[in-house]
Amino acid sequence: MSYVAPLKDMQFVLNELAGLADVNALPGCEDATPDTVEAVLEENAKFCSEVVAPMNWEGDKSPSHWHDGHVTTTKGFKEAFKAFGEAGWQGVQHPVEFGGQGLPKLVATPCLEMLNAANLSFALCPMLTDGAIEALMTAGSEEQKATYLTNLISGKWTGTMNLTEPQAGSDLAMVRSRAVPQEDGTFKVFGTKIYITYGEHDMADNIIHLVLARTPSAPEGIKGISLFLVPKVLVNADGSPGERNDVQCVSIEHKLGIKASPTAVLQFGDHGGAIGTLIGEENRGLEYMFIMMNAARFAVGMQGIGIADRAYQKAVRYAKDRVQSRDLTGSPGPVAIIHQPDVRRMLMSMRAQVEAARALAYVTAAAHDASHHHPDEVTRKANNLFYEFMVPVVKGWSTELSIDVASTGVQIHGGMGFIEETGAAQYYRDARILTIYEGTTAIQANDMIGRKTVRDGGANAKGIIAQVRQTEAELAAVDSADLAAIGARLGEAAQALEDVVNFIVANAKSDIKGVFAGSVLYLKLAGIVFGGWQMGRAALVADKKLKAGDGDASFYRAKIGTARFFADHFLAQASGYRAAIVEGSAGVMALTEDQF
Amino acid sequence: MSYVAPLKDMQFVLNELAGLADVNALPGCEDATPDTVEAVLEENAKFCSEVVAPMNWEGDKSPSHWHDGHVTTTKGFKEAFKAFGEAGWQGVQHPVEFGGQGLPKLVATPCLEMLNAANLSFALCPMLTDGAIEALMTAGSEEQKATYLTNLISGKWTGTMNLTEPQAGSDLAMVRSRAVPQEDGTFKVFGTKIYITYGEHDMADNIIHLVLARTPSAPEGIKGISLFLVPKVLVNADGSPGERNDVQCVSIEHKLGIKASPTAVLQFGDHGGAIGTLIGEENRGLEYMFIMMNAARFAVGMQGIGIADRAYQKAVRYAKDRVQSRDLTGSPGPVAIIHQPDVRRMLMSMRAQVEAARALAYVTAAAHDASHHHPDEVTRKANNLFYEFMVPVVKGWSTELSIDVASTGVQIHGGMGFIEETGAAQYYRDARILTIYEGTTAIQANDMIGRKTVRDGGANAKGIIAQVRQTEAELAAVDSADLAAIGARLGEAAQALEDVVNFIVANAKSDIKGVFAGSVLYLKLAGIVFGGWQMGRAALVADKKLKAGDGDASFYRAKIGTARFFADHFLAQASGYRAAIVEGSAGVMALTEDQF
Repeated sequence: MSYVAPLKDMQFVLNELAGLADVNALPGCEDATPDTVEAVLEENAKFCSEVVAPMNWEGDKSPSHWHDGHVTTTKGFKEAFKAFGEAGWQGVQHPVEFGGQGLPKLVATPCLEMLNAANLSFALCPMLTDGAIEALMTAGSEEQKATYLTNLISGKWTGTMNLTEPQAGSDLAMVRSRAVPQEDGTFKVFGTKIYITYGEHDMADNIIHLVLARTPSAPEGIKGISLFLVPKVLVNADGSPGERNDVQCVSIEHKLGIKASPTAVLQFGDHGGAIGTLIGEENRGLEYMFIMMNAARFAVGMQGIGIADRAYQKAVRYAKDRVQSRDLTGSPGPVAIIHQPDVRRMLMSMRAQVEAARALAYVTAAAHDASHHHPDEVTRKANNLFYEFMVPVVKGWSTELSIDVASTGVQIHGGMGFIEETGAAQYYRDARILTIYEGTTAIQANDMIGRKTVRDGGANAKGIIAQVRQTEAELAAVDSADLAAIGARLGEAAQALEDVVNFIVANAKSDIKGVFAGSVLYLKLAGIVFGGWQMGRAALVADKKLKAGDGDASFYRAKIGTARFFADHFLAQASGYRAAIVEGSAGVMALTEDQF
Repeated sequence: MSYVAPLKDMQFVLNELAGLADVNALPGCEDATPDTVEAVLEENAKFCSEVVAPMNWEGDKSPSHWHDGHVTTTKGFKEAFKAFGEAGWQGVQHPVEFGGQGLPKLVATPCLEMLNAANLSFALCPMLTDGAIEALMTAGSEEQKATYLTNLISGKWTGTMNLTEPQAGSDLAMVRSRAVPQEDGTFKVFGTKIYITYGEHDMADNIIHLVLARTPSAPEGIKGISLFLVPKVLVNADGSPGERNDVQCVSIEHKLGIKASPTAVLQFGDHGGAIGTLIGEENRGLEYMFIMMNAARFAVGMQGIGIADRAYQKAVRYAKDRVQSRDLTGSPGPVAIIHQPDVRRMLMSMRAQVEAARALAYVTAAAHDASHHHPDEVTRKANNLFYEFMVPVVKGWSTELSIDVASTGVQIHGGMGFIEETGAAQYYRDARILTIYEGTTAIQANDMIGRKTVRDGGANAKGIIAQVRQTEAELAAVDSADLAAIGARLGEAAQALEDVVNFIVANAKSDIKGVFAGSVLYLKLAGIVFGGWQMGRAALVADKKLKAGDGDASFYRAKIGTARFFADHFLAQASGYRAAIVEGSAGVMALTEDQF
């Protein structure tokens, strides 16, 4: 089996850290009982491991290819996507009203992790479709919802996000695509969009493009961008397929990784104009796009965790299998390389980062559920603040570490890791996009500083740090050398983060470049502190279970060991980050442009 | 121009940090006058930029390919290699007696950097040939030298290193290839060797394979390995080509990167035995191999620096070119992304690491020259100790950072970075082998701990740290905020390294796994401290020049800014490394194997 879903750790995080029982108690989440969730995860794991994972390497060898405007996906993708839709997996978190399962985000999150671990390229199609569903749910008209949602949620149709243009990447103010109003209320859309994931493919009957464009009367900049729905195939009033719309896939990209996922260049309106309908109100397109972007960013974070876990699993198998050199403490003959301390360190580094990132992501997903479903408004608001703060961390940190983890996976394989047939290199290539799309790490970090830290004077950040301090105190109160060590490191790291928050708030106006020079470092430090926080909480639970003689002792001991590793190897980096952010901006901005 | 040799920084390092004048004063190095060296570097730069660099991308698209035992290299490689040999570049550091230029290693080192920056795949062929030359110079018989050296040094023939077998990678004790003595004094060699760089190709008339194998009477393990010379084409007594030897290239690997460099599986002796001659004495093969390995390891470190600099140059060009978003302090319209502080931070991170690694490598090369040529034995010995200590650092640290630098280069390109046509991704793929071949980073780190630190009770390591302290004191004595800050960080980092050395020496026997659990971290910390030391020395020189109004003020100011960046962003990480090494081994070894 090339991918085994880590159901045990997932269940641990769901139940002990993310509070599945609390989520299940929320109005609207009654179906997410422990038994149902267990069954859902097991079924999903089976589907991902048996159907989706085996196509991953094939997709790399035989990527989707373009011919004359059509894209043929890797063998097996079409059938697998049909099965995916029919089994209801596209609809896990979407409303029952439109055919979904209506489960909380907390339950959809491990499903997302498994699908991505199984096959990053395949998973992108449902992920983008989720985004389109989210946007329509938020801002679509009743007619748009009625026409499109059920088919998107069933997996019959798929969705795309059309933001980027050659001159407009991170800077969406530069979008130039045009939408011209017609007498019948529709719009004719013109323009070139690039990097459109699954912008063209053969896995569904229709593709629903969500497109950012400007109306003739729109103001300049980001305030003049509207969102349009442009189906590949027009839909008749009775829901039957109509004419082919004026949108063409003129090429797909030759990429470093995720090769099975077709990245399209789409040409809208070359033959008279692509017919589209406005979503929501004019000039509010970016706002709607950000709603789906938030969900998509969280999902990309899950991609990082998924691919990192996959790389970890592969490295563990190889390390147990590959016999080379004797044990350092002596052995009759050569032993498996997992005996070598540095291999062990690399495996622990992979494992600890995956577990910490998973825990933080699931806890974030639970906050999302509470922010939507909790009966108390104050609690909803607090959870929303937490969720909003964590989205860039989950996206940025989980993806940055996924590159490191995948690279370490190659290293553990030695020379074999560099040979493509081994498969470790694919993860290294695939992971490399994750810190770039759906907003680069710097874009996430800018969001963290600007909207999430400076705007409220650091109040939300400090509120969360206070929760970390609470865990630190709990760790210190336990009679355990490991927990004490974890608590001490967590305390130092939390202090470093608080220093950084204070620095950012104090200097954002007077030295904006100096503050933003540390933006990505702030994001990474936050990831380490909050990931370490969750590992500290996990160690507390594990310690309690062990003392009570409750459950799988080996699992809990491993959890404490992993938390200890995370503390000494990652939380201990906090002071270095603090120095680089608080004192390191002089060096960042020291050179003039012509000195480069 | 896709690669511009950084001649200015090279000259600065050569003259101000590595002491080219001192090397030139050594007996046997009289030819390396400043004028000659400048001319050599300029010529080499021209050749590398104009001939070798332009084939780099082509080699990735159209790699070397295998057909029926023959390997055809990328278009242009054959002609370029011929020109390379004819211009004398293979012989830069080799004896005049055999047709070389007889220049010091310090001069060969920037040439090596340029060739590798221009084209890692191409550069591997001369690099392996250098290794074969080195081994023959050390242990070859007069007849072997007479027969092979001139043709290897002229580039007419090339050399290979045949170590790895499917079951014997990092663990050479497991080598199984056999060499059976014949009545005429030759041996018949049998076995399968894998990962043989340029093991077969069409760029030279003959390939001289240096092969590790066991004679029938050899003891088990690494003490029973001998080194054999097995030419692809047998050489007649008069030097003319004889029969084809019994060595076949049965396939080449499909790799993540360095695709133009053919990585061969070689089959020796399938048709009666490949004819070889013993190099040096029986059972001392590993010892000879280590002589060439030391040179090769240093050279791989230079590969890391070369590819990192190439990635940096490309990122700078893109960052100056790509217009996106306004300046944070306000601008009439969008500006080049080099204005964005995080882009600036990434560029500085690339630049600072490249400059620090370059300085450390060149200083190490100068020590090699002094260790060979200095008239005073005590000085020779001291320089040899320094060189030996630094080889694993130069190899391990420069290559580890090259992956980070190449990855950052992709990130700066945003979505474009993930598109293969852009070229940034090739560096990310190519660099990934560097921490693996010629001994993984862990193998380098084991060498550092075992042979270079524990054996002498940390004396050599501490002696070098004392030199770092001297630079710290000099920095503190200068009236400059930047230099003071650099000095303070350098002092803290040197202390962390000293703590680590003490920890290693104290615990190597009682807790061998605990000590080796931190081996790679020790290597990386040493790289940061010694790299930071060189940047500190560079800042001292720059400050002096600026105060004297001597030379290019902009260059010197940039050097101080880069040193400052290195201090706050890299030296500041030292305490985290210290913690992970000294206190973090518990976590590394916490899990049992079945808990993975």
